[in-house]
Amino acid sequence: MALIVQKYGGSSVADAESIKRVAKRIVETRKGGNEVVVAVSAMGDTTDELLDLAHDVTPIPAPRELDMLLTAGERISMALLAMAIRSMGYDARSFTGSQAGMITDAQHGAARIVDVTPGRIRDALDEGAIAIVAGFQGFNRDTKDITTLGRGGSDTTAVALAAALNAEICEIYTDVDGVFTADPRVVPMARKIDRITSEEMLELAAAGAKVLYIRAVEYARRHGVTLHVRSSFNNNEGTLVLHENAARAAKQEDGSTVEEPIIAGVATDLSEAKITVVGVPDVPGKAAQIFKIVAKTDANVDMIVQNVSAASTGLTDISFTLPKSEGQRVLTALKAEQGDVGFQNLQYDDQIGKLALVGAGMRTNSGVSAKLFEALYEAGINIEMISTSEIRISVVTRADSVNEAARVVHRAFGLDGDATAIVYAGTGR
Amino acid sequence: MALIVQKYGGSSVADAESIKRVAKRIVETRKGGNEVVVAVSAMGDTTDELLDLAHDVTPIPAPRELDMLLTAGERISMALLAMAIRSMGYDARSFTGSQAGMITDAQHGAARIVDVTPGRIRDALDEGAIAIVAGFQGFNRDTKDITTLGRGGSDTTAVALAAALNAEICEIYTDVDGVFTADPRVVPMARKIDRITSEEMLELAAAGAKVLYIRAVEYARRHGVTLHVRSSFNNNEGTLVLHENAARAAKQEDGSTVEEPIIAGVATDLSEAKITVVGVPDVPGKAAQIFKIVAKTDANVDMIVQNVSAASTGLTDISFTLPKSEGQRVLTALKAEQGDVGFQNLQYDDQIGKLALVGAGMRTNSGVSAKLFEALYEAGINIEMISTSEIRISVVTRADSVNEAARVVHRAFGLDGDATAIVYAGTGR
Repeated sequence: MALIVQKYGGSSVADAESIKRVAKRIVETRKGGNEVVVAVSAMGDTTDELLDLAHDVTPIPAPRELDMLLTAGERISMALLAMAIRSMGYDARSFTGSQAGMITDAQHGAARIVDVTPGRIRDALDEGAIAIVAGFQGFNRDTKDITTLGRGGSDTTAVALAAALNAEICEIYTDVDGVFTADPRVVPMARKIDRITSEEMLELAAAGAKVLYIRAVEYARRHGVTLHVRSSFNNNEGTLVLHENAARAAKQEDGSTVEEPIIAGVATDLSEAKITVVGVPDVPGKAAQIFKIVAKTDANVDMIVQNVSAASTGLTDISFTLPKSEGQRVLTALKAEQGDVGFQNLQYDDQIGKLALVGAGMRTNSGVSAKLFEALYEAGINIEMISTSEIRISVVTRADSVNEAARVVHRAFGLDGDATAIVYAGTGR
Repeated sequence: MALIVQKYGGSSVADAESIKRVAKRIVETRKGGNEVVVAVSAMGDTTDELLDLAHDVTPIPAPRELDMLLTAGERISMALLAMAIRSMGYDARSFTGSQAGMITDAQHGAARIVDVTPGRIRDALDEGAIAIVAGFQGFNRDTKDITTLGRGGSDTTAVALAAALNAEICEIYTDVDGVFTADPRVVPMARKIDRITSEEMLELAAAGAKVLYIRAVEYARRHGVTLHVRSSFNNNEGTLVLHENAARAAKQEDGSTVEEPIIAGVATDLSEAKITVVGVPDVPGKAAQIFKIVAKTDANVDMIVQNVSAASTGLTDISFTLPKSEGQRVLTALKAEQGDVGFQNLQYDDQIGKLALVGAGMRTNSGVSAKLFEALYEAGINIEMISTSEIRISVVTRADSVNEAARVVHRAFGLDGDATAIVYAGTGR
């Protein structure tokens, strides 16, 4: 008997009818002879509605109370889902994050899992029941308070349960058919990826692919959990996210070419801004000084580029990207230390777009960068920043060029499919 | 420093504005130098909306899951209320029933409190915080499951906390000014009662007065908790519900007449039906046999009347009243045992109204029954059943006569006030 963990996002349980549909799918899995544990998000827009209510009461809600409030959302969906399954003649029990043993640190709104003690879940399974667990929420042992894992936390809940219960697979149900070579809304010829390594998935998620949250992929990778991203609206095979070796083995086994495709996919991101610190004295320790100031603001810096200094002036420019929402905070912090650091001025640009090309194959394939830059040059798209990792190349362009950039790069690397991808409404969060 | 427990019903926290208004009132109490613990109901119609959702999913929701679902309601209101108070610069923390130590039995939907261990509430108070507790909900130690206390359970939560924390007073905030001598919607000349004994309040609640739930009054009486029923919409003095001795002492102290009023109030109830078991053999043990059958259905029998048997037939009739919702169940159970009991047939009447006259003074005042019957006779209202306790007389009339009966009895016993009572919308539940 295999243990399967399934995660259903808010759009999959948006109303009573959807909940009954999901209940049927869960019962089918149980009937197939499997033990089933389900992590479920709040219904549809519930979380946003609760956030609106909080902001009607106060502009800055207390974090502990905001977590208490938001966790009501999954409480509703999980109880309804358990009822629906029971009404079909199968035993089902809902569990809060705390009851399911999701132990976290005390950072309200963005808590990290420190331990998973799913004793009650294991007991429920042993008694033949289906366990329905509230996604997104946890419990801190020291404060004895309820916490939340941050947006997309339900993915993490599912993966953490799969790891702790040693599940055979963790199925992430969403409203798209799987992971695509690019966002089908941006690149109509995008293809669904059948198998992807967790390393590639991590880079795609980090680069802005919305289908899986980066924390969940990281967790899965660290604990060896196999993910299967698929649609809750049909029975199509989705995308398997495998360890690199497992991915290669699987590819050979099913007769697909042993030669891996060089590129897994293209991701774009319009949520970042660029800050340039102009005229920094080109002496050792200045970059460290600047990013110490930035780190104190808790900003999530993404790309960093330092130009070679002009020998004549002894000054250099340092640019970095970060989420737009954090821009003002960081500018203020840097401005306050201008005299100490000794830079000339600050530039802020929120009209940038980021494109990332991800593929484990580029590790052993030279010429990927050249091909990328050439494709963009031919399309007349200017590159403003470049950053690379072992399996990713990212470039920054003007915001209004990034979608066109994604299409030409997708085509240049032979990723275009035979047909236009079907685009569903919603995002599956 | 006094400890005050306050309870706010759903209509007092129906939206963000109401929550802010209630937060102000709580902060005022805190500013007055008191420790404050608040029990709060779900916002407005939330509980009914969640019930509707459950019934959209399945006609008979699993009780454990229904409790899990419904407890989301207070989770929302208590978190919002705590946020509102914190935004005013006062420390406030919300606690679920489980966190507040409301330990109950395992009867989902109608759990009874078996223990209250408010350690976290006491700690919060000691640290200067205002404690906001979810009304209506508890926790069973054996199953480790969430339970609910049944409708009106928030009153019970408040009283139980007041008892466990040895509070000076338990204030029940609602949308009327207090307890009235009759329902102002039925008897426009009804007066607010300033002080009432817990015994009288118990009889009024049992007889259909909606302002306080009988379980909460019972709990308060057993544990010596003083209740103060008042409006959350103004600062008027409400109704104090006191122990009999305390009530008498208070009355003397403030110079009011030492002689108690004979009658505290009149209550009416249209929610009951009458079942008559016709032609029961008048031999010992038949009544016991009948009510054993009824008890097995878990019905809440109210009044019971057995007529003297006609000597010629050796048969008698037994009538009893019970909530209309339980009528069909009891009829079916009795019908199934007709042969064994040997009665002739069953009559069912759901067009009855019940009127109860309550007052501790009638204990030492003869002639109260006579005056009641005379008042109804003069108004041409027929009495169908009579039942009495030490401090209550109840009569059953036709349903369409009971409001008129309440008005004439209210007048006959000198309860009419000088002005028409103000009637608010809603019921404060």
